[in-house]
Amino acid sequence: MKRLSTQSPQFQQELQALLAFETVQDPKIDQIVADICADVQRRGDAAVIAYTNQFDGTQAQTMADLTLSQDDLKAAFFRLPENVQTALQTAAERVRSYHQHQKQESWHYTDADGTLLGQQVTPLDRVGIYVPGGKAAYPSSVIMNAMPAHVAGVPEIIMVVPTPQGERNDIVLAAAYIAGVTKVFTIGGAQAVAALAYGTQTVPQVDKITGPGNAFVAAAKRRVFGVVGIDMVAGPSEILVIADGSTPADWVAMDLFSQAEHDEIAQAILIATSPDYLDEVQAAMHRLMPTMPRRAIIEASLGNRGAMILAKDLDEACAIANYIAPEHLELSVENAAAWAQKIRHAGAIFMGRYTSESLGDYCAGPNHVLPTSRTARFSSPLGTYDFQKRSSLIQVSEQGAQQLGKIASILAHGENLTAHARSAELRLKD
Amino acid sequence: MKRLSTQSPQFQQELQALLAFETVQDPKIDQIVADICADVQRRGDAAVIAYTNQFDGTQAQTMADLTLSQDDLKAAFFRLPENVQTALQTAAERVRSYHQHQKQESWHYTDADGTLLGQQVTPLDRVGIYVPGGKAAYPSSVIMNAMPAHVAGVPEIIMVVPTPQGERNDIVLAAAYIAGVTKVFTIGGAQAVAALAYGTQTVPQVDKITGPGNAFVAAAKRRVFGVVGIDMVAGPSEILVIADGSTPADWVAMDLFSQAEHDEIAQAILIATSPDYLDEVQAAMHRLMPTMPRRAIIEASLGNRGAMILAKDLDEACAIANYIAPEHLELSVENAAAWAQKIRHAGAIFMGRYTSESLGDYCAGPNHVLPTSRTARFSSPLGTYDFQKRSSLIQVSEQGAQQLGKIASILAHGENLTAHARSAELRLKD
Repeated sequence: MKRLSTQSPQFQQELQALLAFETVQDPKIDQIVADICADVQRRGDAAVIAYTNQFDGTQAQTMADLTLSQDDLKAAFFRLPENVQTALQTAAERVRSYHQHQKQESWHYTDADGTLLGQQVTPLDRVGIYVPGGKAAYPSSVIMNAMPAHVAGVPEIIMVVPTPQGERNDIVLAAAYIAGVTKVFTIGGAQAVAALAYGTQTVPQVDKITGPGNAFVAAAKRRVFGVVGIDMVAGPSEILVIADGSTPADWVAMDLFSQAEHDEIAQAILIATSPDYLDEVQAAMHRLMPTMPRRAIIEASLGNRGAMILAKDLDEACAIANYIAPEHLELSVENAAAWAQKIRHAGAIFMGRYTSESLGDYCAGPNHVLPTSRTARFSSPLGTYDFQKRSSLIQVSEQGAQQLGKIASILAHGENLTAHARSAELRLKD
Repeated sequence: MKRLSTQSPQFQQELQALLAFETVQDPKIDQIVADICADVQRRGDAAVIAYTNQFDGTQAQTMADLTLSQDDLKAAFFRLPENVQTALQTAAERVRSYHQHQKQESWHYTDADGTLLGQQVTPLDRVGIYVPGGKAAYPSSVIMNAMPAHVAGVPEIIMVVPTPQGERNDIVLAAAYIAGVTKVFTIGGAQAVAALAYGTQTVPQVDKITGPGNAFVAAAKRRVFGVVGIDMVAGPSEILVIADGSTPADWVAMDLFSQAEHDEIAQAILIATSPDYLDEVQAAMHRLMPTMPRRAIIEASLGNRGAMILAKDLDEACAIANYIAPEHLELSVENAAAWAQKIRHAGAIFMGRYTSESLGDYCAGPNHVLPTSRTARFSSPLGTYDFQKRSSLIQVSEQGAQQLGKIASILAHGENLTAHARSAELRLKD
C-alpha cells in the first residue's frame, strides 16, 4: 500500500494523482445503448422480451413470463431462514425510521399585505428501482433505494432485476417485499431502463429511476435523463479512515478491507498522525489478508488505489478529508462528534471506533447510496427528499398586487419585457 | 391559436402532440464545446482570454481586463435611477426572505441503545452563476440564482457574464451587488463554464454552476457535470392558465402574452370550462396584440405552440395540468388555494386573479428558475436547498454495535461480503 506524508513537498500532487479517476464514457457502449433505447421506445414489450432472451438467456414468450407479483415476493421472503427474515426486517425498520426524519413538509406564510407564499411538497407518482442481478445481487440496495421512495409516499414503486438464465435471488425479492415494492419485472440492462423511461404496453412509465448498474445501465440512465429523473451515476466506492491511534489496528484494517473487497477500483485510504500506528495497521492487514475469500480483489484495490497518509495532526487530517470529500468517512478518534463539525464534505460520517462502515451499509438507518468521486462537495446521500418535489405557492392579495405590481413593472421594463410589465400593471387600481 | 376540446376522441393524442418538444443535442456544437473545454483545462487563462476576444469582440490582454470587483458592482448600482435601485432592493429583499424559509438545518436523534443518527447540513464552498449577456440580459436572473446561494451561506459566489463588444449592463451588475455576488468575470460561453468547472490561474474552481445560457453554455454544462454540480438544463418556458371565467379576459390574455414574448418556442396554454370565455380571451388577445412591441415573437409562439383547451369542469382541468406538469400554473379561479391541493405537478402555482406570473418572475419571493418540459413530475424550483448538501451522521454506541453487528453480519454473509461481516463482528463482545 502506498505511503504518503503531508510533510513531502509533493504531497498535494501525490494526493491529486491518488484521487484521479477518469470515468470514460465508451462511445461503443453509447451506440449500443442508443439503439436499444430507440428500439424499446418503438416496439415496446416485443423489444424488451427479445433483448431479455438474448442477453439473459431466458425463454420468455410474453411479459407475463417476466413479471412477479406481490405474492411471488412474499413467497420468496417466507422461503428464507428465520434469522435472515428477521435481519432484513430489522434493517428495513431502521432505514424506514431514519428516512422518516428526512421527509419534507409543505409550508406557507402570509405577508402583512395578505400575500400568501409557500411551498407544496408532493411525492413522485411512480418510480423505478434498478437492481443488478447475477453475482452483484445486493438485497441491501433494494432496501436503500425502495424505502426512501416508500417513506416519501410514492404510490407505485416498480423494480426491475435481471434473472440471468432465469435464476431468481430470494433475498433480493424478499427485500423488495419488505421495502414496499409494488411490482417486479425480471428484466435488466439498457432495455429495462428504456422500458421504465418510455413505458411499454406492460411496463408503466415512471418519473424517476434510481439504483446501481453496469456500464450499459449507466449509459442508458444518462440517455433517458430529462425524460425521467435519475439518481447520480456512481463512481467506484471509497472509504477514508482518520485514526488517532485509539482504535485496535485489526478493526481499522478490516474496515479498509471491507471497502477494498467491493472491486479492484474501489479506494481505501487511511490517515493517521503517527507512523507507528500506520505500521500496526499495515501489520494487521498482512496478518488478516490470508483469511479473506476476496483476497485477490482486496490486494488489487489496495495496491492500485489504496494509501496510508501520515498527517501532522487531526486538524490537518480533517483538511485533507475536506479536499477528498469521501463517500464514507470513518472518524475513528476520541471525541469524534466534535471533529465531525470540522468536516464540510463527506457522504456519510461514521463516528467513533464502534461505528464500522459496514453497520451503515446494512442497518444503522442512513442510506448507503452516497456521492462518490469528490461529488460530496455538491451532492447528498440518496434520501426521502429525492422522491419528493416542491411547487412554489403564490397567492397575491389585491393589496399586495399594488406594491408588487409597481416593482415588477419597473424591472420588466428594464428587461424590455413589455407584456410582463403590462400584466402586472393591469392589476393596479389606477 | 389552436383550440382543443377534452370531448374530442383524439384529445389525448392532440395534447401529446402539443407538448412534444425535442431538445436535440447538436453533435457539431458538442464538438466545438469539447474542444473549448479541453483547451481551457490545458491552457487556463490564456485560452479564456483568447476565446473571449474572439467571440465577444473584446481586446483583453490579461484576466484583470475581464475582472470586476465589488467596487465596480457598487458603482453600477449607484449609477441607476433611484426608482430602479429601490425596485431591485425590494425584489432582492423579498427573494431573500422567502428563501430563508427553505434553509435546511442539521438534525440528529439518539436511539434507546445510545446510537446517534442524523444529518449534517453544510453550504457549498464556492458556486458559479452564469448570466447571459447581450440582449437577453436579465437582472432578475442574477437575483434568482445568487440569492439562494447567499442565503444558504455559500462563502464565495462567482458570477460570469459576457460583455459583447465590451458593453456592460449596469442593472445586471447592480443586481449582482444587491444579491451578494463576490466577484464577476466578464466572460461567457463554453469557455466561462470550463473556467469555473476546472479553475484557471485566475478563475477559482467552483463546486456547482447554475444559470441559463445558449446552446453552447448548455452543452458545456452537460459536459462538466460530475466534475461540478449543475442546475437543470432548461427547455423553453411555459405557462398554463386555468380560468373559471371570473378573471377579466384582458388580464388572462396579457398573462399568456407575457409567456409568449420570451421566445418563439415558449408555450402558453389556456384551459377554461366555457367556450364563451375562450372566445372572450381570444378577442382580448386580438385587441391587445397591436400594442405589443414583441408582437412578432408573441404571434409566432402562440401560433406554433399555444392552445386553448375547453374542459368540462375544473376537476378535469386539474387532471390535464397534472399531465402537463407545467413550469408556471395560474389558477385564475375562485377558491384557488383549495384547487391547488389537487395539483401534484407544477413548478410554481399562482393562485387567484391578482397573482400574475410576472409578479412571481420578479419580486413575489419564490424563485423563477423552475422545471420545464414536464420535469416538474420529478424536480423542483431552484432553491436554497440546491446550495446546501447533507452528510449522514452515524455514531454507534458499544451497546448498539452488539445488536447492529449481528444483523450486518447476517446480511453481509448473504451478499458474500466477508470483510463487511468481519468488520462488524470484530466489534462484538464474544
